[in-house]
Amino acid sequence: MKTDRNLEETEPAEIYKLEKIFSGKEGTNMTIEEKFAKLGVDNAPGQEERQKAAVLDLRGEKLEGREVDFSHGDVDAFEPIPGSLETFEEGYRVGGKQAYTPYRGGAGSLADLAGKLSAYTQMPIDPDQNLIITPGTQGALFLAMGSLVNAGDKVAIVEPDYFANRKLVQFFGGELVPVEMHYFEHDDRAGLDLEQLEDAFRQGAKLFLFSNPNNPTGVIYSHDEIVKIAELAGRYGAFVLADELYSRQIFDGRPYTHYGSAGDPENLITIIGPSKTESMSGFRLGAAFGSAQIITRMEKLQAIVSLRAAGYCQSLLKLWFHEPEGWMKERIAAHQAIRDDILAVLRAAEGVRVRTTEAGSYVFPKLPPLDVTIQDFVKILRVQAGVTVTPGTEFGPQFTDSFRINFSQDHKAAVDAVKRLLTVMERYRA
Amino acid sequence: MKTDRNLEETEPAEIYKLEKIFSGKEGTNMTIEEKFAKLGVDNAPGQEERQKAAVLDLRGEKLEGREVDFSHGDVDAFEPIPGSLETFEEGYRVGGKQAYTPYRGGAGSLADLAGKLSAYTQMPIDPDQNLIITPGTQGALFLAMGSLVNAGDKVAIVEPDYFANRKLVQFFGGELVPVEMHYFEHDDRAGLDLEQLEDAFRQGAKLFLFSNPNNPTGVIYSHDEIVKIAELAGRYGAFVLADELYSRQIFDGRPYTHYGSAGDPENLITIIGPSKTESMSGFRLGAAFGSAQIITRMEKLQAIVSLRAAGYCQSLLKLWFHEPEGWMKERIAAHQAIRDDILAVLRAAEGVRVRTTEAGSYVFPKLPPLDVTIQDFVKILRVQAGVTVTPGTEFGPQFTDSFRINFSQDHKAAVDAVKRLLTVMERYRA
Repeated sequence: MKTDRNLEETEPAEIYKLEKIFSGKEGTNMTIEEKFAKLGVDNAPGQEERQKAAVLDLRGEKLEGREVDFSHGDVDAFEPIPGSLETFEEGYRVGGKQAYTPYRGGAGSLADLAGKLSAYTQMPIDPDQNLIITPGTQGALFLAMGSLVNAGDKVAIVEPDYFANRKLVQFFGGELVPVEMHYFEHDDRAGLDLEQLEDAFRQGAKLFLFSNPNNPTGVIYSHDEIVKIAELAGRYGAFVLADELYSRQIFDGRPYTHYGSAGDPENLITIIGPSKTESMSGFRLGAAFGSAQIITRMEKLQAIVSLRAAGYCQSLLKLWFHEPEGWMKERIAAHQAIRDDILAVLRAAEGVRVRTTEAGSYVFPKLPPLDVTIQDFVKILRVQAGVTVTPGTEFGPQFTDSFRINFSQDHKAAVDAVKRLLTVMERYRA
Repeated sequence: MKTDRNLEETEPAEIYKLEKIFSGKEGTNMTIEEKFAKLGVDNAPGQEERQKAAVLDLRGEKLEGREVDFSHGDVDAFEPIPGSLETFEEGYRVGGKQAYTPYRGGAGSLADLAGKLSAYTQMPIDPDQNLIITPGTQGALFLAMGSLVNAGDKVAIVEPDYFANRKLVQFFGGELVPVEMHYFEHDDRAGLDLEQLEDAFRQGAKLFLFSNPNNPTGVIYSHDEIVKIAELAGRYGAFVLADELYSRQIFDGRPYTHYGSAGDPENLITIIGPSKTESMSGFRLGAAFGSAQIITRMEKLQAIVSLRAAGYCQSLLKLWFHEPEGWMKERIAAHQAIRDDILAVLRAAEGVRVRTTEAGSYVFPKLPPLDVTIQDFVKILRVQAGVTVTPGTEFGPQFTDSFRINFSQDHKAAVDAVKRLLTVMERYRA
C-alpha cells in the first residue's frame, strides 16, 4: 500500500492551507492520505507530551513554578463524584449482566438516566427509544455525526467551537459551512451571527452543530438566540446537534435554555456527559438523546465502533444528577472563584482581551500582536513556564492570536501559571 | 431532515437483498439511509433483548432448563483475571494522570504491553510508534478499518468471518470482495481459498482482513496458509489486518502462526484484546500493533471517536499476559472439555455437521434442512428453549443453515442447552 507519508506528517499550522487546497475536493474525491492529513492531533489537548522537539526561539530565563496543564481539567484538584469507586465495585460484582449490556446501554441505566435527563431538560425521553449511553461525550458526538453526515453534505458549524466538530465534518466527507460567533461584541448573548446561519441553511446545510455553553469561549446562548436557531432550523428543515456538555456549570445565576425546549424533537440530538464538572472522564461515559431514528442509527454504528461504553463503568451513571447535597453548588462556586482571579490577572495585561466565562471551565483570551506564531508561543510556554494551553487555531483557522485554558485546576497553581504565561508573553510582543 | 424510515427498519434477512441492489452503488453514491439500512444490528450478538416480538410458528411444549445466552461468553462462569478489581482501584487512585492518557494510551501501559506482545508474537514493537490501546478489540478493528478503507476501495474478506468485518467495509464505502473458506474440507488447515484470494488482489483489493483463529468456525490457519497469504499480499502490495483476538486459547496443543511472523511489518496491523479468554470485556480494552503510519492514523481517528480507552481501565492491562501461574492453562482445559461434550452431542444428531473447534470458544454447526428460516429458528429457540444463538447469516449471506454458539459458559448448562436446541430442531426438520 503506497502512501504519501510526508503529506500526513504535515504540521497542524499547514492543515488549514490544505483545507483550502482541498475545498472543492471534499469527501468522496479525497485520497485517504489527504483525509488523514487534515486530521491533525499533535496540538489537540492532552497530546502535547507526544510533540516532537522543536527548535524554538527561547528568550529569557525559565520561570519556576508548579506545572499546570490547562488543556483539560485536573481531576486531582476536583475529584470525581463521591462514591465513584464504591459504585464501580458494585457494578463489577453484578458480573456478566453489567459487562455485556445492549449496545445502547443497560436497560436499568437507560431508565434511570432518561428520567433524570428529562427532568433536567424538560423534554420527554423514552428510555427505550430516545437515549443511548456512549464512551464519553466524544463518543456521542462521533456517533451522532456518523449518523447524520454523508459525503458531500453541507454542515453549519460555529467558529469558534470545539475542535473535533470540524474534524468530524471532514472525516465523514462533509463540507464545512462556518458561522461566526461575535463573542466580543455582546455580554447578554453568545453573539451567533444569525444571518450567516440562515445563509448556511439557504446554501443547503441540513445540519447545524453547536456547543452551549460554547467551547472555547464559555459563553451561553440567550433564550432569544436558541428560539431563533430553532425557528430557522424548522423553516429550512435542518437537523440540530446540541452539545450541552458544560450546561450544569453556570455562573452568576445566569439563565440557560436547553435547545430541546425550543427545537423540533424529531430533528434534534443533544449530547452530554459527566466528564467535565463531575470529573468522571476516566470512566468514559456520555449520552445522547433525541430523535429515535438517529438514536437507532447511533446504536448500529456503536455496534461496529466499540460495542458499548465499558459495562462496569455504566453503573457509575446512577451517581450523575444524584450528587451529594450541595456538592455541585460548592464545585460551581469554586470554579467561579478561580475564573474571577484569572480574569483579573489577564485583564491587567495591556492588550489582552477576554470575555467573561458565563459557564464551564474555559477562557479564550485574545493576545496582543506577538512576533511568534501561536503554535510556537504555546510550545515556548511549555518549555519556559511549565504551562500547557491549547492554541486558538484548534477552534477555527482565524484564531491565530488566541488560546484556550481549562481553569478546572488547583486555584493557586492556576493563577500563578497565568501570571507566568503573561510574563513570557511580554518577551514576545511584536 | 426527511428520511426513509421504512428502509432503515428493514429486516436483517432483507439486508442481503439490499446489498445486491446497492452493489454497483457502493460508498459514495449511497444515501445515508441506504448506508444505515445495511448496518443491521437486531440479530447481532447481545442485542436479542431488543428484538421486537415476532409472530412465530411455535411447535410443541416449551422446554424447561437454565437459560443460556450463547451469543457471547459468560463472565460469571469464567471470571476476569484474578486481581482485576484491586488493579482498577490502584489505577483510579493514581488520579488525573491515569484518567487523561494520550489518545493512544498511557506511556507506562504502552511500554509494558509492547514488551509482552512482542514476546508473544515474536515481532519488534516500539511502544512509541507501533502500538495503540483501544476501547476493546472492536475499537481497534474500527480504527484500523477507518484508517485503511476509503470510499470505493476493494477489501478482501473471508466468508465466514466476524460479522462486523463486512459492516465496516460497507460503512466506509468500500467494496466487499469475498474469499471463501472451505472449512468442512480440511482438518489440518483453515481451508482458505487461496486462488480466490489471489483473484481478489488481482481485481485490485489492497486490503485483506481475516480473523485467526477464525470467528465463527474456531479453526486455525496453518503455517503454510499464513506464509502463502503473506506471499500473495507482498506480491500485490496489499495491506493485511489480522484479528488474533482468540489466539491465546488453542486446543489440543496445535501449532499457531502469528501473521506478524510472516508478513511485511510495514503492511500489517494485528489486533488483539483481553475480552475473550481473559473475560475482561466489561472494561473495554483492546490493542492494535504494526505499521507506525497506520497506528498514527488510528490515533488521529481515536481523537474524534472516543478520545481513549477508559483511563482507569487501562491500568488493568498490566494483568494481561501476567495471569497467575497455571490460570490460563486451566481455563483452556476447561473450555476444551466443554467443546468435547458439545461436539459429541451435536454429532449424535442426524444431519448436523460441525468442524472441531481448534481454538477459541466458537462452534459453527450446519443444520439439516428445516422448514423455517434460520432467523425464525433462532427466535423460536429463545422462546421454546431459553437458548440464544447467532444466525449464520451474520457471518456471510450464504450461511442460511448455520448458527454460531460461544461455549464459554457454565459447562453443564451449556451441554443441556445444546440438547434442548436439538430437540427443538427436530420439530422443524423439512
